[in-house]
Amino acid sequence: MKSWDTVTIVGVGLIGGSVGLALRKRGLARNVVGVGRNQSKLRKAQRQGAITAATQDVEHGVSDADVVVICTPVESIGPFAERAARACPAGSLVTDAGSTKSNIVASVRPKWPREVGFVGSHPLAGSEKSGCEHGQANLFEDRVTVVTPTAKTSEKHLKKAVQFWNSLGSVVIQMSPKQHDQAIAMTSHLPHVVASILAASAGKDHLPLAASGWLDTTRIASGNVDLWKQILTDNQPQVLKAIDKFEKTLHSFRRALQSGRRQTVARILAKGKENRDSLGN
Amino acid sequence: MKSWDTVTIVGVGLIGGSVGLALRKRGLARNVVGVGRNQSKLRKAQRQGAITAATQDVEHGVSDADVVVICTPVESIGPFAERAARACPAGSLVTDAGSTKSNIVASVRPKWPREVGFVGSHPLAGSEKSGCEHGQANLFEDRVTVVTPTAKTSEKHLKKAVQFWNSLGSVVIQMSPKQHDQAIAMTSHLPHVVASILAASAGKDHLPLAASGWLDTTRIASGNVDLWKQILTDNQPQVLKAIDKFEKTLHSFRRALQSGRRQTVARILAKGKENRDSLGN
Repeated sequence: MKSWDTVTIVGVGLIGGSVGLALRKRGLARNVVGVGRNQSKLRKAQRQGAITAATQDVEHGVSDADVVVICTPVESIGPFAERAARACPAGSLVTDAGSTKSNIVASVRPKWPREVGFVGSHPLAGSEKSGCEHGQANLFEDRVTVVTPTAKTSEKHLKKAVQFWNSLGSVVIQMSPKQHDQAIAMTSHLPHVVASILAASAGKDHLPLAASGWLDTTRIASGNVDLWKQILTDNQPQVLKAIDKFEKTLHSFRRALQSGRRQTVARILAKGKENRDSLGN
Repeated sequence: MKSWDTVTIVGVGLIGGSVGLALRKRGLARNVVGVGRNQSKLRKAQRQGAITAATQDVEHGVSDADVVVICTPVESIGPFAERAARACPAGSLVTDAGSTKSNIVASVRPKWPREVGFVGSHPLAGSEKSGCEHGQANLFEDRVTVVTPTAKTSEKHLKKAVQFWNSLGSVVIQMSPKQHDQAIAMTSHLPHVVASILAASAGKDHLPLAASGWLDTTRIASGNVDLWKQILTDNQPQVLKAIDKFEKTLHSFRRALQSGRRQTVARILAKGKENRDSLGN
Protein backbone atom coordinates (compact mmCIF):
# COMPACT_ATOMS: atom_id res chain seq x y z
CA MET A 1 0.00 0.00 0.00
CA LYS A 2 1.29 3.45 -0.97
CA SER A 3 2.12 5.61 2.04
CA TRP A 4 2.82 9.30 2.42
CA ASP A 5 5.18 11.47 4.36
CA THR A 6 2.72 14.29 4.99
CA VAL A 7 -1.02 14.55 4.37
CA THR A 8 -2.77 17.81 5.16
CA ILE A 9 -6.48 17.90 5.95
CA VAL A 10 -8.21 21.25 5.59
CA GLY A 11 -11.40 21.13 7.70
CA VAL A 12 -11.24 18.54 10.46
CA GLY A 13 -14.92 17.64 10.93
CA LEU A 14 -16.64 14.27 10.51
CA ILE A 15 -15.06 13.52 7.12
CA GLY A 16 -11.70 15.24 7.66
CA GLY A 17 -11.36 13.69 11.10
CA SER A 18 -12.17 10.25 9.71
CA VAL A 19 -9.55 10.69 6.94
CA GLY A 20 -6.99 11.45 9.65
CA LEU A 21 -8.03 8.54 11.88
CA ALA A 22 -7.93 6.14 8.92
CA LEU A 23 -4.47 7.34 7.80
CA ARG A 24 -3.09 6.99 11.32
CA LYS A 25 -4.70 3.65 12.10
CA ARG A 26 -3.49 2.17 8.83
CA GLY A 27 0.01 3.66 9.26
CA LEU A 28 -0.23 5.43 5.90
CA ALA A 29 1.17 8.84 6.80
CA ARG A 30 4.03 9.98 9.00
CA ASN A 31 2.51 13.41 9.52
CA VAL A 32 -1.14 14.35 9.37
CA VAL A 33 -1.54 18.11 9.54
CA GLY A 34 -4.95 19.53 10.39
CA VAL A 35 -5.92 23.01 9.21
CA GLY A 36 -8.95 24.73 10.72
CA ARG A 37 -10.27 28.02 12.01
CA ASN A 38 -11.19 26.85 15.48
CA GLN A 39 -8.19 26.16 17.70
CA SER A 40 -10.12 24.22 20.36
CA LYS A 41 -11.57 21.88 17.73
CA LEU A 42 -8.08 21.32 16.30
CA ARG A 43 -6.73 20.49 19.76
CA LYS A 44 -9.60 18.04 20.25
CA ALA A 45 -8.83 16.36 16.92
CA GLN A 46 -5.17 16.09 17.91
CA ARG A 47 -6.02 14.54 21.28
CA GLN A 48 -8.35 12.14 19.45
CA GLY A 49 -5.41 11.05 17.27
CA ALA A 50 -6.92 12.25 13.99
CA ILE A 51 -4.02 14.66 13.32
CA THR A 52 -0.41 14.93 14.48
CA ALA A 53 -0.06 18.69 14.03
CA ALA A 54 -2.44 21.63 13.74
CA THR A 55 -2.43 25.11 12.32
CA GLN A 56 -4.90 27.85 11.45
CA ASP A 57 -2.74 28.93 8.49
CA VAL A 58 -3.57 27.09 5.24
CA GLU A 59 -0.35 28.06 3.43
CA HIS A 60 1.78 26.95 6.35
CA GLY A 61 -0.25 23.75 6.81
CA VAL A 62 0.22 22.53 3.23
CA SER A 63 3.87 23.55 2.77
CA ASP A 64 5.20 19.97 3.09
CA ALA A 65 2.11 18.03 1.93
CA ASP A 66 2.25 15.15 -0.56
CA VAL A 67 -1.55 15.14 -0.49
CA VAL A 68 -3.96 17.86 0.59
CA VAL A 69 -7.58 16.89 1.22
CA ILE A 70 -10.09 19.74 1.46
CA CYS A 71 -12.92 18.61 3.74
CA THR A 72 -14.66 21.93 4.34
CA PRO A 73 -18.28 22.77 3.46
CA VAL A 74 -18.89 22.83 -0.30
CA GLU A 75 -18.80 26.63 -0.74
CA SER A 76 -15.28 27.05 0.57
CA ILE A 77 -13.67 24.03 -1.12
CA GLY A 78 -12.75 25.95 -4.31
CA PRO A 79 -11.08 28.89 -2.53
CA PHE A 80 -9.20 26.62 -0.11
CA ALA A 81 -8.08 24.31 -2.93
CA GLU A 82 -6.58 27.26 -4.80
CA ARG A 83 -4.72 28.57 -1.78
CA ALA A 84 -3.45 25.08 -1.04
CA ALA A 85 -2.31 24.53 -4.63
CA ARG A 86 -0.30 27.75 -4.68
CA ALA A 87 1.45 26.93 -1.43
CA CYS A 88 2.08 23.18 -1.53
CA PRO A 89 5.19 21.52 -3.05
CA ALA A 90 5.42 20.86 -6.82
CA GLY A 91 4.01 17.46 -7.73
CA SER A 92 1.52 17.34 -4.87
CA LEU A 93 -2.07 16.23 -5.20
CA VAL A 94 -4.91 18.39 -3.97
CA THR A 95 -8.24 16.64 -3.66
CA ASP A 96 -11.46 17.16 -1.72
CA ALA A 97 -14.44 15.41 -0.18
CA GLY A 98 -17.25 17.65 -1.41
CA SER A 99 -20.75 16.34 -2.15
CA THR A 100 -20.88 18.24 -5.46
CA LYS A 101 -18.28 18.26 -8.19
CA SER A 102 -18.99 20.31 -11.36
CA ASN A 103 -18.68 23.80 -9.86
CA ILE A 104 -15.77 22.90 -7.63
CA VAL A 105 -13.77 21.25 -10.40
CA ALA A 106 -14.58 24.07 -12.87
CA SER A 107 -13.73 26.81 -10.39
CA VAL A 108 -10.34 25.44 -9.46
CA ARG A 109 -8.81 24.04 -12.61
CA PRO A 110 -7.92 26.88 -14.95
CA LYS A 111 -5.90 29.01 -12.58
CA TRP A 112 -3.65 26.31 -11.22
CA PRO A 113 0.15 26.02 -11.19
CA ARG A 114 1.12 23.27 -13.57
CA GLU A 115 2.90 20.93 -11.18
CA VAL A 116 0.06 20.61 -8.70
CA GLY A 117 -2.93 18.53 -9.66
CA PHE A 118 -6.47 18.90 -8.42
CA VAL A 119 -8.71 15.85 -8.71
CA GLY A 120 -12.24 16.23 -7.37
CA SER A 121 -13.40 13.41 -5.09
CA HIS A 122 -16.52 12.49 -3.14
CA PRO A 123 -16.38 9.74 -0.55
CA LEU A 124 -19.99 8.55 -0.07
CA ALA A 125 -19.57 8.29 3.63
CA GLY A 126 -21.60 11.08 5.08
CA SER A 127 -23.86 10.88 8.05
CA GLU A 128 -26.55 12.98 9.61
CA LYS A 129 -23.97 13.61 12.35
CA SER A 130 -21.15 16.10 12.12
CA GLY A 131 -17.94 16.97 13.95
CA CYS A 132 -14.60 15.20 14.38
CA GLU A 133 -15.91 13.53 17.56
CA HIS A 134 -18.15 11.37 15.34
CA GLY A 135 -15.23 10.52 13.05
CA GLN A 136 -14.35 6.85 12.53
CA ALA A 137 -11.17 5.23 11.22
CA ASN A 138 -13.29 2.76 9.24
CA LEU A 139 -15.69 5.33 7.77
CA PHE A 140 -14.44 4.72 4.21
CA GLU A 141 -14.05 0.95 4.36
CA ASP A 142 -16.04 -0.73 1.59
CA ARG A 143 -17.75 2.58 0.82
CA VAL A 144 -17.65 4.10 -2.63
CA THR A 145 -15.53 7.16 -3.37
CA VAL A 146 -16.26 8.86 -6.68
CA VAL A 147 -13.18 10.39 -8.31
CA THR A 148 -13.95 12.86 -11.11
CA PRO A 149 -11.14 13.39 -13.63
CA THR A 150 -11.59 15.74 -16.58
CA ALA A 151 -9.83 15.85 -19.97
CA LYS A 152 -7.15 18.02 -18.35
CA THR A 153 -6.39 15.71 -15.41
CA SER A 154 -2.92 14.14 -15.62
CA GLU A 155 -2.64 10.35 -15.36
CA LYS A 156 -0.17 10.78 -12.53
CA HIS A 157 -2.50 12.82 -10.35
CA LEU A 158 -5.53 10.68 -11.14
CA LYS A 159 -3.58 7.57 -10.13
CA LYS A 160 -2.49 9.26 -6.92
CA ALA A 161 -6.09 10.21 -6.06
CA VAL A 162 -7.32 6.67 -6.69
CA GLN A 163 -4.47 5.26 -4.58
CA PHE A 164 -5.25 7.69 -1.79
CA TRP A 165 -8.91 6.70 -1.39
CA ASN A 166 -8.13 3.03 -1.98
CA SER A 167 -5.60 3.18 0.81
CA LEU A 168 -8.36 4.28 3.23
CA GLY A 169 -10.36 1.17 2.29
CA SER A 170 -12.67 2.83 -0.21
CA VAL A 171 -13.90 1.39 -3.51
CA VAL A 172 -13.15 4.01 -6.19
CA ILE A 173 -15.51 4.73 -9.09
CA GLN A 174 -14.49 7.19 -11.79
CA MET A 175 -16.96 9.44 -13.58
CA SER A 176 -17.07 12.96 -14.95
CA PRO A 177 -18.05 15.78 -12.56
CA LYS A 178 -21.36 16.19 -14.39
CA GLN A 179 -22.20 12.48 -14.34
CA HIS A 180 -21.44 12.52 -10.61
CA ASP A 181 -23.70 15.49 -10.00
CA GLN A 182 -26.57 13.95 -11.96
CA ALA A 183 -26.37 10.60 -10.20
CA ILE A 184 -25.82 12.03 -6.73
CA ALA A 185 -28.78 14.39 -7.19
CA MET A 186 -30.97 11.28 -7.52
CA THR A 187 -29.35 9.14 -4.81
CA SER A 188 -28.46 11.73 -2.18
CA HIS A 189 -29.69 15.28 -2.78
CA LEU A 190 -33.28 14.41 -3.77
CA PRO A 191 -33.62 11.94 -0.86
CA HIS A 192 -32.40 14.71 1.45
CA VAL A 193 -35.00 17.16 0.15
CA VAL A 194 -37.75 14.55 0.36
CA ALA A 195 -36.77 13.41 3.86
CA SER A 196 -36.69 17.02 5.08
CA ILE A 197 -40.10 17.81 3.64
CA LEU A 198 -41.60 14.58 5.03
CA ALA A 199 -40.23 15.46 8.44
CA ALA A 200 -41.36 19.08 8.12
CA SER A 201 -44.89 18.02 7.06
CA ALA A 202 -45.67 15.97 10.13
CA GLY A 203 -47.63 17.95 12.70
CA LYS A 204 -46.93 17.71 16.42
CA ASP A 205 -50.16 15.71 16.79
CA HIS A 206 -48.94 13.17 14.23
CA LEU A 207 -45.52 12.51 15.73
CA PRO A 208 -46.68 10.05 18.43
CA LEU A 209 -47.55 7.73 15.55
CA ALA A 210 -44.11 7.96 13.94
CA ALA A 211 -42.66 4.44 13.97
CA SER A 212 -39.66 2.77 12.34
CA GLY A 213 -40.79 3.54 8.77
CA TRP A 214 -40.99 7.25 9.44
CA LEU A 215 -37.74 7.21 11.42
CA ASP A 216 -35.86 5.50 8.58
CA THR A 217 -37.36 7.62 5.85
CA THR A 218 -36.61 10.92 7.59
CA ARG A 219 -33.29 10.08 9.30
CA ILE A 220 -31.11 12.24 7.02
CA ALA A 221 -33.34 15.26 7.69
CA SER A 222 -31.24 15.60 10.87
CA GLY A 223 -28.26 16.66 8.76
CA ASN A 224 -26.63 20.06 9.22
CA VAL A 225 -28.90 22.69 7.65
CA ASP A 226 -26.16 25.05 6.52
CA LEU A 227 -24.07 22.29 4.88
CA TRP A 228 -27.11 20.99 3.02
CA LYS A 229 -28.23 24.45 1.95
CA GLN A 230 -24.79 24.83 0.34
CA ILE A 231 -24.87 21.41 -1.33
CA LEU A 232 -28.38 21.82 -2.76
CA THR A 233 -27.63 25.35 -3.95
CA ASP A 234 -24.35 24.30 -5.54
CA ASN A 235 -25.95 21.40 -7.41
CA GLN A 236 -29.13 23.37 -8.11
CA PRO A 237 -29.65 22.46 -11.82
CA GLN A 238 -29.41 18.72 -11.18
CA VAL A 239 -31.44 18.88 -7.97
CA LEU A 240 -34.23 20.73 -9.81
CA LYS A 241 -34.25 18.04 -12.52
CA ALA A 242 -34.37 15.30 -9.89
CA ILE A 243 -37.26 17.05 -8.09
CA ASP A 244 -39.11 17.40 -11.42
CA LYS A 245 -38.74 13.70 -12.16
CA PHE A 246 -39.88 12.81 -8.66
CA GLU A 247 -42.85 15.22 -8.77
CA LYS A 248 -43.97 13.74 -12.08
CA THR A 249 -43.98 10.17 -10.79
CA LEU A 250 -45.60 11.22 -7.52
CA HIS A 251 -48.33 12.96 -9.43
CA SER A 252 -48.96 9.92 -11.68
CA PHE A 253 -49.20 7.85 -8.55
CA ARG A 254 -51.62 10.32 -6.98
CA ARG A 255 -53.89 10.30 -10.03
CA ALA A 256 -53.84 6.49 -10.16
CA LEU A 257 -54.74 6.27 -6.47
CA GLN A 258 -57.49 8.87 -6.85
CA SER A 259 -59.11 7.16 -9.81
CA GLY A 260 -58.81 3.67 -8.36
CA ARG A 261 -56.35 2.36 -10.97
CA ARG A 262 -54.93 -0.24 -8.65
CA GLN A 263 -52.66 -1.84 -11.24
CA THR A 264 -50.82 1.44 -11.77
CA VAL A 265 -50.50 1.89 -8.02
CA ALA A 266 -49.07 -1.63 -7.77
CA ARG A 267 -46.75 -1.12 -10.75
CA ILE A 268 -45.08 1.95 -9.17
CA LEU A 269 -44.77 0.21 -5.79
CA ALA A 270 -43.30 -2.86 -7.51
CA LYS A 271 -40.73 -0.83 -9.44
CA GLY A 272 -39.61 0.81 -6.19
CA LYS A 273 -39.42 -2.55 -4.44
CA GLU A 274 -37.36 -4.03 -7.27
CA ASN A 275 -34.78 -1.23 -7.14
CA ARG A 276 -34.65 -1.26 -3.36
CA ASP A 277 -34.37 -5.05 -3.08
CA SER A 278 -31.46 -5.03 -5.53
CA LEU A 279 -29.31 -3.23 -2.94
CA GLY A 280 -29.97 -5.32 0.19
CA ASN A 281 -30.50 -3.91 3.65
CA MET B 1 -51.11 -9.09 34.18
CA LYS B 2 -54.39 -10.30 32.72
CA SER B 3 -54.10 -13.70 31.05
CA TRP B 4 -56.42 -15.62 28.75
CA ASP B 5 -57.53 -19.15 28.30
CA THR B 6 -57.69 -19.04 24.50
CA VAL B 7 -56.54 -16.42 22.02
CA THR B 8 -57.20 -17.01 18.32
CA ILE B 9 -55.06 -15.37 15.68
CA VAL B 10 -56.52 -15.16 12.18
CA GLY B 11 -53.62 -14.72 9.75
CA VAL B 12 -50.32 -15.96 11.13
CA GLY B 13 -47.79 -13.78 9.28
CA LEU B 14 -45.25 -11.33 10.68
CA ILE B 15 -47.74 -9.58 12.99
CA GLY B 16 -49.95 -12.57 13.81
CA GLY B 17 -46.91 -14.75 14.44
CA SER B 18 -45.40 -12.13 16.71
CA VAL B 19 -48.66 -11.86 18.69
CA GLY B 20 -48.50 -15.62 19.23
CA LEU B 21 -44.82 -15.64 20.17
CA ALA B 22 -45.37 -12.77 22.61
CA LEU B 23 -48.40 -14.45 24.25
CA ARG B 24 -46.51 -17.72 24.66
CA LYS B 25 -43.24 -16.19 25.84
CA ARG B 26 -45.05 -14.06 28.42
CA GLY B 27 -47.25 -16.98 29.52
CA LEU B 28 -50.41 -15.00 28.81
CA ALA B 29 -52.52 -17.64 27.07
CA ARG B 30 -53.06 -21.33 27.64
CA ASN B 31 -54.11 -21.92 24.02
CA VAL B 32 -53.10 -19.90 21.01
CA VAL B 33 -55.08 -21.02 17.98
CA GLY B 34 -53.82 -20.05 14.53
CA VAL B 35 -56.26 -19.74 11.63
CA GLY B 36 -54.91 -19.57 8.07
CA ARG B 37 -55.46 -20.79 4.55
CA ASN B 38 -52.05 -22.35 4.07
CA GLN B 39 -51.54 -25.56 6.04
CA SER B 40 -47.77 -25.71 5.63
CA LYS B 41 -47.42 -22.14 6.94
CA LEU B 42 -49.61 -23.04 9.92
CA ARG B 43 -47.45 -26.09 10.67
CA LYS B 44 -44.35 -23.90 10.48
CA ALA B 45 -45.89 -21.38 12.91
CA GLN B 46 -46.73 -24.22 15.28
CA ARG B 47 -43.17 -25.63 15.13
CA GLN B 48 -41.87 -22.12 15.75
CA GLY B 49 -44.00 -21.96 18.90
CA ALA B 50 -46.18 -19.07 17.76
CA ILE B 51 -49.38 -21.13 18.05
CA THR B 52 -50.43 -24.23 19.97
CA ALA B 53 -53.15 -25.38 17.55
CA ALA B 54 -54.03 -24.69 13.93
CA THR B 55 -57.07 -24.81 11.71
CA GLN B 56 -58.18 -23.58 8.31
CA ASP B 57 -61.74 -23.09 9.57
CA VAL B 58 -62.39 -19.64 11.05
CA GLU B 59 -65.62 -20.60 12.84
CA HIS B 60 -64.00 -23.62 14.41
CA GLY B 61 -60.86 -21.69 15.31
CA VAL B 62 -62.69 -18.97 17.27
CA SER B 63 -65.25 -21.18 19.01
CA ASP B 64 -63.47 -21.02 22.40
CA ALA B 65 -61.67 -17.70 22.05
CA ASP B 66 -61.62 -15.03 24.76
CA VAL B 67 -59.84 -12.77 22.30
CA VAL B 68 -59.68 -12.99 18.50
CA VAL B 69 -57.04 -10.93 16.70
CA ILE B 70 -57.46 -10.54 12.94
CA CYS B 71 -54.00 -10.10 11.43
CA THR B 72 -54.82 -10.56 7.75
CA PRO B 73 -54.25 -8.03 4.97
CA VAL B 74 -56.46 -4.95 5.33
CA GLU B 75 -59.11 -5.93 2.73
CA SER B 76 -60.09 -9.13 4.44
CA ILE B 77 -60.11 -7.88 8.04
CA GLY B 78 -63.77 -6.78 7.93
CA PRO B 79 -65.15 -10.04 6.52
CA PHE B 80 -63.04 -12.19 8.87
CA ALA B 81 -63.99 -10.06 11.87
CA GLU B 82 -67.70 -10.58 11.11
CA ARG B 83 -67.35 -14.32 10.74
CA ALA B 84 -65.33 -14.49 13.94
CA ALA B 85 -67.88 -12.38 15.84
CA ARG B 86 -70.77 -14.63 14.84
CA ALA B 87 -68.93 -17.79 15.89
CA CYS B 88 -67.02 -16.87 19.04
CA PRO B 89 -68.40 -17.08 22.58
CA ALA B 90 -70.59 -14.29 24.02
CA GLY B 91 -68.51 -11.64 25.77
CA SER B 92 -65.43 -12.18 23.63
CA LEU B 93 -63.35 -9.40 22.17
CA VAL B 94 -62.54 -9.28 18.47
CA THR B 95 -59.77 -6.91 17.50
CA ASP B 96 -57.35 -6.52 14.61
CA ALA B 97 -53.94 -5.28 13.61
CA GLY B 98 -54.80 -3.43 10.41
CA SER B 99 -52.92 -0.34 9.23
CA THR B 100 -56.16 1.51 8.50
CA LYS B 101 -59.15 1.90 10.75
CA SER B 102 -62.14 3.97 9.48
CA ASN B 103 -63.41 1.55 6.83
CA ILE B 104 -62.72 -1.54 8.89
CA VAL B 105 -64.46 -0.20 12.00
CA ALA B 106 -67.42 1.15 9.96
CA SER B 107 -67.83 -2.08 8.00
CA VAL B 108 -67.92 -4.33 11.02
CA ARG B 109 -69.86 -2.48 13.68
CA PRO B 110 -73.50 -2.28 12.74
CA LYS B 111 -74.18 -5.94 12.02
CA TRP B 112 -72.66 -7.38 15.12
CA PRO B 113 -74.18 -9.62 17.78
CA ARG B 114 -74.54 -7.56 20.95
CA GLU B 115 -72.36 -9.60 23.28
CA VAL B 116 -69.24 -9.59 21.15
CA GLY B 117 -67.25 -6.41 20.89
CA PHE B 118 -65.06 -5.29 18.04
CA VAL B 119 -62.39 -2.72 18.85
CA GLY B 120 -60.12 -1.69 15.98
CA SER B 121 -56.42 -1.70 16.79
CA HIS B 122 -53.19 -0.91 15.02
CA PRO B 123 -49.88 -1.97 16.54
CA LEU B 124 -47.20 0.26 14.95
CA ALA B 125 -44.80 -2.59 14.61
CA GLY B 126 -44.62 -3.35 10.94
CA SER B 127 -41.54 -4.09 8.97
CA GLU B 128 -40.53 -4.28 5.34
CA LYS B 129 -40.31 -8.03 5.97
CA SER B 130 -43.25 -10.40 6.07
CA GLY B 131 -44.03 -13.96 7.14
CA CYS B 132 -44.21 -15.68 10.52
CA GLU B 133 -40.53 -16.65 10.20
CA HIS B 134 -39.67 -12.97 10.78
CA GLY B 135 -41.97 -12.78 13.80
CA GLN B 136 -40.51 -11.73 17.14
CA ALA B 137 -41.83 -12.17 20.67
CA ASN B 138 -40.66 -8.64 21.51
CA LEU B 139 -42.08 -6.96 18.40
CA PHE B 140 -44.62 -4.95 20.42
CA GLU B 141 -42.42 -4.06 23.39
CA ASP B 142 -42.32 -0.29 23.91
CA ARG B 143 -44.03 0.22 20.55
CA VAL B 144 -47.26 2.16 20.26
CA THR B 145 -50.56 0.41 19.56
CA VAL B 146 -53.41 2.68 18.58
CA VAL B 147 -56.80 1.50 19.82
CA THR B 148 -59.76 3.19 18.14
CA PRO B 149 -63.02 3.14 20.11
CA THR B 150 -66.17 4.79 18.77
CA ALA B 151 -69.25 6.13 20.56
CA LYS B 152 -70.71 2.62 20.38
CA THR B 153 -67.74 0.79 21.91
CA SER B 154 -68.51 -0.63 25.36
CA GLU B 155 -66.18 0.25 28.24
CA LYS B 156 -65.71 -3.44 28.94
CA HIS B 157 -64.46 -4.29 25.47
CA LEU B 158 -62.32 -1.18 25.22
CA LYS B 159 -60.67 -2.06 28.53
CA LYS B 160 -60.07 -5.61 27.31
CA ALA B 161 -58.46 -4.37 24.08
CA VAL B 162 -56.17 -1.99 25.99
CA GLN B 163 -55.25 -4.79 28.42
CA PHE B 164 -54.52 -7.15 25.56
CA TRP B 165 -52.01 -4.89 23.79
CA ASN B 166 -50.52 -3.72 27.09
CA SER B 167 -49.95 -7.32 28.04
CA LEU B 168 -47.78 -7.76 24.92
CA GLY B 169 -45.59 -4.86 26.07
CA SER B 170 -47.18 -2.19 23.92
CA VAL B 171 -47.91 1.42 24.85
CA VAL B 172 -51.58 2.05 24.02
CA ILE B 173 -52.83 5.34 22.58
CA GLN B 174 -56.57 5.88 22.04
CA MET B 175 -57.96 7.93 19.18
CA SER B 176 -60.93 7.84 16.85
CA PRO B 177 -60.64 5.76 13.65
CA LYS B 178 -60.55 8.96 11.57
CA GLN B 179 -57.91 10.64 13.72
CA HIS B 180 -55.84 7.48 13.39
CA ASP B 181 -56.19 7.41 9.62
CA GLN B 182 -55.24 11.08 9.27
CA ALA B 183 -52.16 10.79 11.46
CA ILE B 184 -51.01 7.47 10.05
CA ALA B 185 -51.38 8.81 6.49
CA MET B 186 -48.72 11.39 7.38
CA THR B 187 -46.39 9.17 9.41
CA SER B 188 -46.64 5.87 7.54
CA HIS B 189 -48.62 5.88 4.29
CA LEU B 190 -47.10 9.05 2.80
CA PRO B 191 -43.56 7.94 3.74
CA HIS B 192 -44.27 4.62 2.02
CA VAL B 193 -45.41 6.34 -1.17
CA VAL B 194 -42.45 8.70 -1.12
CA ALA B 195 -39.92 5.95 -0.40
CA SER B 196 -41.34 3.84 -3.23
CA ILE B 197 -41.19 6.68 -5.72
CA LEU B 198 -37.67 7.64 -4.66
CA ALA B 199 -36.58 4.05 -5.14
CA ALA B 200 -38.48 3.77 -8.44
CA SER B 201 -36.92 7.01 -9.75
CA ALA B 202 -33.30 5.94 -9.42
CA GLY B 203 -31.94 4.60 -12.71
CA LYS B 204 -29.68 1.56 -12.86
CA ASP B 205 -26.75 3.90 -13.61
CA HIS B 206 -27.46 5.86 -10.43
CA LEU B 207 -27.64 2.94 -8.03
CA PRO B 208 -23.85 2.48 -7.59
CA LEU B 209 -23.94 5.87 -5.85
CA ALA B 210 -26.70 4.85 -3.44
CA ALA B 211 -25.21 5.13 0.06
CA SER B 212 -26.63 5.04 3.58
CA GLY B 213 -28.92 8.06 3.07
CA TRP B 214 -30.64 6.46 0.09
CA LEU B 215 -30.80 3.09 1.83
CA ASP B 216 -32.47 4.58 4.91
CA THR B 217 -34.85 6.78 2.98
CA THR B 218 -36.06 3.96 0.71
CA ARG B 219 -35.94 0.99 3.13
CA ILE B 220 -39.72 0.63 3.46
CA ALA B 221 -40.10 0.47 -0.33
CA SER B 222 -39.18 -3.22 0.10
CA GLY B 223 -42.55 -3.83 1.74
CA ASN B 224 -45.04 -6.27 0.23
CA VAL B 225 -46.62 -4.62 -2.82
CA ASP B 226 -50.03 -6.22 -2.48
CA LEU B 227 -50.39 -5.39 1.22
CA TRP B 228 -49.44 -1.77 0.57
CA LYS B 229 -51.73 -1.45 -2.42
CA GLN B 230 -54.57 -2.49 -0.11
CA ILE B 231 -53.55 -0.12 2.68
CA LEU B 232 -53.15 2.92 0.40
CA THR B 233 -56.40 2.16 -1.41
CA ASP B 234 -58.30 1.68 1.82
CA ASN B 235 -57.05 4.96 3.29
CA GLN B 236 -57.24 6.76 -0.06
CA PRO B 237 -58.89 10.03 1.05
CA GLN B 238 -56.33 10.66 3.80
CA VAL B 239 -53.40 9.51 1.66
CA LEU B 240 -54.44 11.92 -1.11
CA LYS B 241 -54.59 14.78 1.41
CA ALA B 242 -51.15 13.85 2.75
CA ILE B 243 -49.71 13.72 -0.79
CA ASP B 244 -51.26 17.13 -1.54
CA LYS B 245 -49.68 18.66 1.53
CA PHE B 246 -46.32 17.11 0.69
CA GLU B 247 -46.50 18.21 -2.97
CA LYS B 248 -47.28 21.77 -1.93
CA THR B 249 -44.26 22.01 0.38
CA LEU B 250 -42.01 20.27 -2.15
CA HIS B 251 -43.08 22.73 -4.78
CA SER B 252 -42.43 25.73 -2.50
CA PHE B 253 -39.01 24.29 -1.84
CA ARG B 254 -38.39 23.81 -5.55
CA ARG B 255 -39.33 27.40 -6.34
CA ALA B 256 -37.13 28.72 -3.54
CA LEU B 257 -34.17 26.67 -4.75
CA GLN B 258 -34.73 27.74 -8.35
CA SER B 259 -34.91 31.43 -7.55
CA GLY B 260 -32.00 31.34 -5.12
CA ARG B 261 -34.03 32.17 -2.01
CA ARG B 262 -31.58 30.50 0.30
CA GLN B 263 -33.33 31.54 3.51
CA THR B 264 -36.51 29.73 2.45
CA VAL B 265 -34.46 26.66 1.52
CA ALA B 266 -32.82 26.77 4.95
CA ARG B 267 -36.13 27.37 6.73
CA ILE B 268 -37.72 24.21 5.27
CA LEU B 269 -34.61 22.13 6.01
CA ALA B 270 -34.54 23.50 9.56
CA LYS B 271 -38.21 22.69 10.17
CA GLY B 272 -37.58 19.09 9.02
CA LYS B 273 -34.50 18.82 11.21
CA GLU B 274 -36.40 20.14 14.24
CA ASN B 275 -39.19 17.55 13.87
CA ARG B 276 -36.75 14.72 13.17
CA ASP B 277 -34.39 15.61 16.03
CA SER B 278 -37.35 15.63 18.44
CA LEU B 279 -37.71 11.85 18.00
CA GLY B 280 -34.10 10.66 18.41
CA ASN B 281 -32.43 8.03 16.31
